[in-house]
Amino acid sequence: MPVGALQLEAGGYLPEVVLGYETWGTLNADASNAVLIEHALTGSTHVARGASDEDGWWDDLVGPGATIDTERYFVVAANMVGGCYGSTGPASPAPDGSPWGSRFPFVTIRDSVRAEARLADALGIRRWHAVLGGSMGGARALEWAATFPERTARCAVMACGAASTAEQIAFAQAQVAAIRLDPHFAGGDYYGGPAPEAGLGIARRIAHINYRSEPELEYRFGRSAQAEEQPFGGITPSARGRYAVESYLDYQAEKLVSRFDANSYILLTEALVSHDISRGRGSLEQSLGGLEETEFFIAAVDSDRLYFPEQSRQLAEALPGSVKVHTIETPLGHDGFLTDVHQLHDDLTQAFFPHA
Amino acid sequence: MPVGALQLEAGGYLPEVVLGYETWGTLNADASNAVLIEHALTGSTHVARGASDEDGWWDDLVGPGATIDTERYFVVAANMVGGCYGSTGPASPAPDGSPWGSRFPFVTIRDSVRAEARLADALGIRRWHAVLGGSMGGARALEWAATFPERTARCAVMACGAASTAEQIAFAQAQVAAIRLDPHFAGGDYYGGPAPEAGLGIARRIAHINYRSEPELEYRFGRSAQAEEQPFGGITPSARGRYAVESYLDYQAEKLVSRFDANSYILLTEALVSHDISRGRGSLEQSLGGLEETEFFIAAVDSDRLYFPEQSRQLAEALPGSVKVHTIETPLGHDGFLTDVHQLHDDLTQAFFPHA
Repeated sequence: MPVGALQLEAGGYLPEVVLGYETWGTLNADASNAVLIEHALTGSTHVARGASDEDGWWDDLVGPGATIDTERYFVVAANMVGGCYGSTGPASPAPDGSPWGSRFPFVTIRDSVRAEARLADALGIRRWHAVLGGSMGGARALEWAATFPERTARCAVMACGAASTAEQIAFAQAQVAAIRLDPHFAGGDYYGGPAPEAGLGIARRIAHINYRSEPELEYRFGRSAQAEEQPFGGITPSARGRYAVESYLDYQAEKLVSRFDANSYILLTEALVSHDISRGRGSLEQSLGGLEETEFFIAAVDSDRLYFPEQSRQLAEALPGSVKVHTIETPLGHDGFLTDVHQLHDDLTQAFFPHA
Repeated sequence: MPVGALQLEAGGYLPEVVLGYETWGTLNADASNAVLIEHALTGSTHVARGASDEDGWWDDLVGPGATIDTERYFVVAANMVGGCYGSTGPASPAPDGSPWGSRFPFVTIRDSVRAEARLADALGIRRWHAVLGGSMGGARALEWAATFPERTARCAVMACGAASTAEQIAFAQAQVAAIRLDPHFAGGDYYGGPAPEAGLGIARRIAHINYRSEPELEYRFGRSAQAEEQPFGGITPSARGRYAVESYLDYQAEKLVSRFDANSYILLTEALVSHDISRGRGSLEQSLGGLEETEFFIAAVDSDRLYFPEQSRQLAEALPGSVKVHTIETPLGHDGFLTDVHQLHDDLTQAFFPHA
């Protein structure tokens, strides 16, 4: 969906922005049943099965008869500006016909939310019944409530705080540096040539370790060797076989590299680094304390060591009224917002999606 | 000190090994006052001031009148085989006169300990009063006790478990991959040309974040901008200024790059990945349960999120008798074994270094 030109917070300008999106269900007559689901860093718009039979990343939450029942709600998922799932991004042609590449401007979560508001306009949705997301999707949902409180009746923020932390910035820096170090990166103008797959793969490894937990990795892999490989054989270290955990991370890296553009990874990582709900709005309390029009649902994963539950608690405390932090209990870590979101079914149903 | 040829565990061979070392104090007549201090991954032999006035990395523990009183004990610190502080390593000339570079063989903690035993022979030390180390130094100390129990009267292992864990292997893999991705790495044969500083810098960033803790980074840096820089200014992400935490990690990376060889970093990282006190010795209990000749002192840092205190507890449980885990209390994380080792003064004095 074309949503026009976008003047960006950090000073850049995109003359023509298209937002890729998917929908499920039917918008009702007074457009009061619309739900926006915001994807995480490398997520797509494919939240759930629907037009495509392909598994969605939140099938447990969205579908016919699910927590967000697509027979009752009209569900929309839009790709972030700068992404690579249908929205204008670095691989899209710039006005001169060549890919934007290194010229693609710095986009923030807030910029994307402003573009998403135009998509809502075009779809005839004045006010969302609810906006939900986890991780970077949670940052987007929160930014919706802060930027357009009158358009956000309900807002669910899972596994994400009010701003990206020093540690999140630090791990992001190492990831972006690894992509830029890849000789194939070519300063960001690699389209038409080989992609910086090795660099993107390293970024994914760093990220993925932090998306899981130490006990899970130890339980699943320990010091096991990968199949027939000999991690301890090899006259030089570069000649040795792999441990199972290394093979697992190679697989995670390969999977991402085959589906994601490295420039989009940098763009969205930088957008997430910029996440700060208070930017230009005063203190955290000043930024959030007045959002009386929106009902909030905050959730954290107990074993999350990237978006610590404490950050969700701080967010909840800054919101108006008394907002509870719901907990997903899993040893998995941050990814629990994907793998174990079903644990929120009862609470989320009661809070946001009561049965008719 | 030349210690001869070394046939290595993983199959490699080093025809002539030199061990760099430093000493403090004087060996007594019956050679009963010798203490070996084992450095961590990027540590040097410069444990404490002495011949050189330069600060040592364990000045709080070693020196005249300190916990390990160099007026009473003869303290030795040897550089790991494969390192870059005086021992034979990848930058050393191979028999053909060119640097070993990519040909330098896979060395384990156990290999280095065997070389260090020859150094002890040459110095006239049959049995160490104590062997101590933290992090990789702890792995080396533990390997001394397991390989040469009759030569290790006392053994202190700080912030290190019985084997490297899946997560430690995983973070190591990303670090080694970043170094190898650097175009200057040239497969490991970069001597005479530019060094792979960017890759080594990324490795250090990943490691350093894990050496500290999320609360410490948040407390020290939060989302502050670096001095006059504008992290939110810049039309493209690559043009923006830095956050203070990014500048801090740039500084940590630059400091390491100026003093450490990338091939040695890979070699010692791989040695640490190979750390498994049980390799070839049966179960953990079979490997450690019989070490009755050695007195152990185990310590963990309460906020360590790379070498979790739980790993120290598992190690202590596998040792003979009832071994307590001493705790360094600091919000700093793993680096607490360096910054706050003074907390162990009383316990370590009582256990290993009672006053005459």
